[in-house]
Amino acid sequence: MAERVVIEARWDPILGDWVLVSNVREFRPWRPRGCPFCPGSPETGWGWRVLVIENAFPMLVPNPPTGPRSDFPFISVPGRGRCFVVVETPRHDVDDLSDLSASDLADVLETLQILFEELSKDPAIVYALWFRNKGEEVGVSLTHPHSQVYALPFIPNKVLREMRNCYRFWARSGRCLLCEVRDRELEAGERVVCRTRFFAAFVPFWAKWPFEIHVHPLRHLESLRYASREELEDLARCLRAVLQGLRRVFGKPMPYVAVLHEPPLRGSYPWFHTHLEIYGMYRVSGRLKYAGGSETGGGVFTYDSTPEVAAKMLRSALEVPDHGSEDKR
Amino acid sequence: MAERVVIEARWDPILGDWVLVSNVREFRPWRPRGCPFCPGSPETGWGWRVLVIENAFPMLVPNPPTGPRSDFPFISVPGRGRCFVVVETPRHDVDDLSDLSASDLADVLETLQILFEELSKDPAIVYALWFRNKGEEVGVSLTHPHSQVYALPFIPNKVLREMRNCYRFWARSGRCLLCEVRDRELEAGERVVCRTRFFAAFVPFWAKWPFEIHVHPLRHLESLRYASREELEDLARCLRAVLQGLRRVFGKPMPYVAVLHEPPLRGSYPWFHTHLEIYGMYRVSGRLKYAGGSETGGGVFTYDSTPEVAAKMLRSALEVPDHGSEDKR
Repeated sequence: MAERVVIEARWDPILGDWVLVSNVREFRPWRPRGCPFCPGSPETGWGWRVLVIENAFPMLVPNPPTGPRSDFPFISVPGRGRCFVVVETPRHDVDDLSDLSASDLADVLETLQILFEELSKDPAIVYALWFRNKGEEVGVSLTHPHSQVYALPFIPNKVLREMRNCYRFWARSGRCLLCEVRDRELEAGERVVCRTRFFAAFVPFWAKWPFEIHVHPLRHLESLRYASREELEDLARCLRAVLQGLRRVFGKPMPYVAVLHEPPLRGSYPWFHTHLEIYGMYRVSGRLKYAGGSETGGGVFTYDSTPEVAAKMLRSALEVPDHGSEDKR
Repeated sequence: MAERVVIEARWDPILGDWVLVSNVREFRPWRPRGCPFCPGSPETGWGWRVLVIENAFPMLVPNPPTGPRSDFPFISVPGRGRCFVVVETPRHDVDDLSDLSASDLADVLETLQILFEELSKDPAIVYALWFRNKGEEVGVSLTHPHSQVYALPFIPNKVLREMRNCYRFWARSGRCLLCEVRDRELEAGERVVCRTRFFAAFVPFWAKWPFEIHVHPLRHLESLRYASREELEDLARCLRAVLQGLRRVFGKPMPYVAVLHEPPLRGSYPWFHTHLEIYGMYRVSGRLKYAGGSETGGGVFTYDSTPEVAAKMLRSALEVPDHGSEDKR
């Protein structure tokens, strides 16, 4: 349909953010037979426990074919970067990350550490965005457990907004805003979901998604890259509990989106620390939450219960047995 | 489940935006029998052609029960405002706005003008956000044609971001950024969808959604409130064409979200003008676009074709007959 391959980032001067544009799908009508993420597929090979592979349909590539453009308001840069798939386990029939053992899950996190470290050496890459989509309700077609990493030539808009506000707070008070929020949430307690030795999970006071859970380190851990193996295993335990909670609330898998808000790959950020955000998409009523006109068109999220009720439901859910996939440990 | 009625706006100090929180649904387990928007229902009565009614489950009310809160970082204000449903036609079996005659559609727009004018007199209300969700894929359960207006005590975050960038551009150049963008898009031509006497519709260079269409006035029309009847009828024609295009592209209704980006209800904005944004949610491949981790978690939209291809498809679609609902005119 298109005439040439386009892989670029276009600048929206009205909203002030970048959009990734890539029409590689139109040129590569590739359809895998069987699961492309299972061991022994053309892309995966054998003998791994966690595997990082390049996305077959990348939004970003190391050497994009498109040049920059600067005739205002049409500003674009080549889509320089990488798109990775993190295949989190060789086992196809696992429902969720929470079905991995804490140690296996810590291995996944350690794989991210290594990938981030590697990416930080590439001067063209500014930021590594890890995210995970779970459930066909959020568009997931390949059910083999996997997440993604976009190695970006810019800081994602949402992280940039957070950084801006964190920096302002720090300049005024000398405190990390994220530490402040975590401490006040732990003090208040009513929105806390669980707490492990080094991490805490809570539904923030201003949750936008029905079962939105933020996982913070208890110390000011700037980046996941600086976490010890002991901390990674603890984070794995915290994450397992939270994700089991999401599945237990309604006694069935809940679609969610998870994202890691790291600082940029290079630089020092005493005013910002890494944290994980998980957006469980079922409303308190059990029905799917959609981002409609208010959210998508206006940027105004509507929460039709209270974060306190969601946190309470999650805490109660943590006390009932989990019904994961059969081979859960 | 909850202990008390909560209707408030909570401030997210990390992202810097407001979230509407309302648990009225938990206290009013109301289920309509039959369509609540058809003439003769308890909410609607008879004898209207366009009807504005209050939302049965409001996120905002004139006299919210909740007080403000200011123990940082937990900041909230009462959810003072109004939530309206605009029932756009008495006819239940109409698929979309484009099935109304241009004159009937202009009546809908005129109704908005009157509502906005009325709301502008209420000092508690800062902004009127009109939006429209279409299709069950975006969560619409009531198919009787309707849209919504949130009368808000703050400027929606997305509009605020636009206003900020428009103001900066104006301060530097003396020009309205939105006028600049529209003029350059019309000049370039390749992303223009259609043009009527007073309005133009184009897929912006930095479209975030697959069939994202922006409809701009050809003059610097600050607010829809200042449009003449002649302009409203022309806008109705432009809007009908665009929405028919969306339905024709794949020969079936396309889910979409539409939103009107007005300036705030009071004040003068020589650097900002009203425009309509429509996000058609099918990708060029015909499959539904989901906002996943990259979009929802990072604020980074991915466009897996090019806006130029989408615009071309829409232009071609405008040339084939439309198969709307039976009673279209």
